[in-house]
Amino acid sequence: MIDVQNQKDIRNMPIDRVGVKNLRYPVTVLDRSNREQHTVASVSMDVNLPHHFRGTHMSRFIEILNETHRELHIDKITKILQRMKKRLEAEQASMEIRFPYFIEKKAPVSGAESLMEYQCLYQGTLADRSDFILGVDVPVTTLCPCSREMSEHGAHNQRSVVRIRVRTCKFVWIEELIEYAEQSASSPLYALLKREDEKAVTEQAYDKPMFVEDMVREVALHLEKDNRITWYAVESENMESIHNHDAYARIENLKSQ
Amino acid sequence: MIDVQNQKDIRNMPIDRVGVKNLRYPVTVLDRSNREQHTVASVSMDVNLPHHFRGTHMSRFIEILNETHRELHIDKITKILQRMKKRLEAEQASMEIRFPYFIEKKAPVSGAESLMEYQCLYQGTLADRSDFILGVDVPVTTLCPCSREMSEHGAHNQRSVVRIRVRTCKFVWIEELIEYAEQSASSPLYALLKREDEKAVTEQAYDKPMFVEDMVREVALHLEKDNRITWYAVESENMESIHNHDAYARIENLKSQ
Amino acid sequence: MIDVQNQKDIRNMPIDRVGVKNLRYPVTVLDRSNREQHTVASVSMDVNLPHHFRGTHMSRFIEILNETHRELHIDKITKILQRMKKRLEAEQASMEIRFPYFIEKKAPVSGAESLMEYQCLYQGTLADRSDFILGVDVPVTTLCPCSREMSEHGAHNQRSVVRIRVRTCKFVWIEELIEYAEQSASSPLYALLKREDEKAVTEQAYDKPMFVEDMVREVALHLEKDNRITWYAVESENMESIHNHDAYARIENLKSQ
Amino acid sequence: MIDVQNQKDIRNMPIDRVGVKNLRYPVTVLDRSNREQHTVASVSMDVNLPHHFRGTHMSRFIEILNETHRELHIDKITKILQRMKKRLEAEQASMEIRFPYFIEKKAPVSGAESLMEYQCLYQGTLADRSDFILGVDVPVTTLCPCSREMSEHGAHNQRSVVRIRVRTCKFVWIEELIEYAEQSASSPLYALLKREDEKAVTEQAYDKPMFVEDMVREVALHLEKDNRITWYAVESENMESIHNHDAYARIENLKSQ
Repeated sequence: MIDVQNQKDIRNMPIDRVGVKNLRYPVTVLDRSNREQHTVASVSMDVNLPHHFRGTHMSRFIEILNETHRELHIDKITKILQRMKKRLEAEQASMEIRFPYFIEKKAPVSGAESLMEYQCLYQGTLADRSDFILGVDVPVTTLCPCSREMSEHGAHNQRSVVRIRVRTCKFVWIEELIEYAEQSASSPLYALLKREDEKAVTEQAYDKPMFVEDMVREVALHLEKDNRITWYAVESENMESIHNHDAYARIENLKSQ
Repeated sequence: MIDVQNQKDIRNMPIDRVGVKNLRYPVTVLDRSNREQHTVASVSMDVNLPHHFRGTHMSRFIEILNETHRELHIDKITKILQRMKKRLEAEQASMEIRFPYFIEKKAPVSGAESLMEYQCLYQGTLADRSDFILGVDVPVTTLCPCSREMSEHGAHNQRSVVRIRVRTCKFVWIEELIEYAEQSASSPLYALLKREDEKAVTEQAYDKPMFVEDMVREVALHLEKDNRITWYAVESENMESIHNHDAYARIENLKSQ
Repeated sequence: MIDVQNQKDIRNMPIDRVGVKNLRYPVTVLDRSNREQHTVASVSMDVNLPHHFRGTHMSRFIEILNETHRELHIDKITKILQRMKKRLEAEQASMEIRFPYFIEKKAPVSGAESLMEYQCLYQGTLADRSDFILGVDVPVTTLCPCSREMSEHGAHNQRSVVRIRVRTCKFVWIEELIEYAEQSASSPLYALLKREDEKAVTEQAYDKPMFVEDMVREVALHLEKDNRITWYAVESENMESIHNHDAYARIENLKSQ
Repeated sequence: MIDVQNQKDIRNMPIDRVGVKNLRYPVTVLDRSNREQHTVASVSMDVNLPHHFRGTHMSRFIEILNETHRELHIDKITKILQRMKKRLEAEQASMEIRFPYFIEKKAPVSGAESLMEYQCLYQGTLADRSDFILGVDVPVTTLCPCSREMSEHGAHNQRSVVRIRVRTCKFVWIEELIEYAEQSASSPLYALLKREDEKAVTEQAYDKPMFVEDMVREVALHLEKDNRITWYAVESENMESIHNHDAYARIENLKSQ
């Protein structure tokens, strides 16, 4: 059979990225409390394509992924990227996996246990140098300081999502980034709250009002102090309970070493 | 050319619905304040197919839609359904259009004007009898009575969506259904609130705590009392500010006439 | 503390459904080849609420779910529904779980193995009688018979999703429903195809053109013949490669016993 | 009332972006054929916040938007950004609007007219210098050259989305970018095709097979030749009819002037 992909291309146009997207895959990832955790990932993998090749070999991405035996611990990403570079004859290989991650949390008063879900991200690139971004989205409560200050009783509050992305020079657990976000919020979220817990989180949130601007600043202060982190971006998106649109803030910083 | 769709089918299997889905279309709809409003709809249209035909003629759905000249006022739906029945030789024709609808609202204290978006639904069916469902999704604030009762200060509150669907024996404005939902909520939402408005809606919500169960009951009471409405379904979904999941309630009732 | 939920309600308005939605949960489900499979579910749980209670106890849904120890095999659903009825003092309890499910498939010529994802549904209700619906969404290829018949070369084809829902009087594997859909399609999909496989699936699809109407009829014939199945609904939605909208067909049938 | 937002902030942490997101708004935009077009946009607006301010004034974003009287022609963006900078006392202001845009197209043989929808993007930033990105997503058909070459009959093909983003030194119509994508594809899409048209587009696609790599290269060649364009990024995402994942390619280039 003719290998159409290997035909010479004369358009003199290199391609930055070519690969597969939205591939769903059951994986195991590292878990600080239970060693490993089963979850389901959305995977994308791509390489650059020099100008003289017409096409890449899409099936090889899947073959390389299959060789992982569904284990996608962070340290496997580099090996996968090396194989992608070699087997697809590329100068640059990138991979992104997104997956839900569950942590057992105790309610603040009753101690009742339940699972909270966090969306996580591993994003790796291997070219001359390698690059890795770890990310997690943490849903929290934020309570508006302005509403609280002005109002006789109560204050509007809402579910917010805090998105943290970091580059690191030493290993950082997803759980640690989650703690930074939950400590900074008006209150963490829980899947299970008994009545005494609901009282506690309501009061805690009222006692710790946070603008969307405060939210990203507080998380950024944690990330600034953590010397393992060399770069970060933190966003918060508040699903305002008094509006039908969202409030939003973002800080990004490459720390001077 | 052979007309493959008109081939006889011997599988003896009638099809309940066949048609097009997720067709996007710019339309004008009726507007109580401004006579008409421009918006963009998602349209689906389908007919039944008797067992002896192999296929329907998909292009005719689009032709019929084009004959509306983009005007999809409610009273046009019946004409479209009649054409679908006739031109596609069907016993039953159905059409559903969903569209964002905007209403100018005044903030409660400052009177500042802004636009609120509501997702609307027209769902028509024509067989031996005709059927029409009018729907609207109304985003509101709900404040938890239990949290308020137990807590020293504050109460958790959140954005909720109230979904109303009605069958009527007389014309009902979308705006009227929206009023039923907003009057029942802890507070309506606004796109623009000045500081004095934010104080007012915060206090109003605190003074009118509503469970998700209260929300659907209050709207249902309005719908029960309105004699133009012969059937209704009302749902509320609260994006809980203390959980990462939603609370949900639903009432459906065919009113005895 | 006052139990606000247990307050008497005087609005005389029973609620059909009240509960939790969009709760994400890691689960294990039955797997025909590997006994069980880890996946991540979206869960909703609800009960009816008699007119004299003001509110339900949302936290109990989560407690009941936690007692399953993350095992949500089909036969556990009934036990969960029984607990929901009892602990929430309800006459009716419903539960719905949706989850991605993976099956190892061999490419048709090379035999190369890869994983295919299918979205599954368990939907159980327990009132005076119990009801259970099993569902699966199967992505397939469909190739247009009309386009093939008229054109000198080629025929337009596309990714389609076949949605099967069944009630049964005997156990049916998800895998069996998937086989019905894949056998009926122009071709099944695969995550990994080598060049010889791509040739085979292209030719197979060309040799087996299927309208969206054919697709649902062929699956319906399988479901009609299967005596374990007492009711079914089958839909197909084709993401047409020549249009920006989808073609759609649906058959539903309560089989006479 | 105390102005909490204007309080001094001592955390010494400037914020890159703070504003509103997912605000829905009915707008009119420029239309090459009909002067202007009504549509519905999703709007985000943000500014930077110096380290010494605690919060921005979210309501001012909405006030500024309201002053546009719903006209969001491209040339209005700069005025909006200037107002944002001034009224929010910021050094940088950004705005993004996304909206569906409809163009009347004639079917290739019958000349039957129908509307095609394209998702568009205006992205403006004003700091010391101003920046503007124009974007459009164009759905097309792509037919696989490899599948065609190897197979006795037929070739797999699918709906693909081509995403074009450009910076320009002279005005460029959305319609011109759409033409670049549609001319490069195996075939454009249409909402309405009669049988003679379906034959024509099927045969055209078979005669012009395009890998996802070819797709982005062909569009990039058009963008390279157009001297009004100073920078571009072009992506294509193919919803493969033989896989359940997507194939993807991307080229980005800052043209040397």
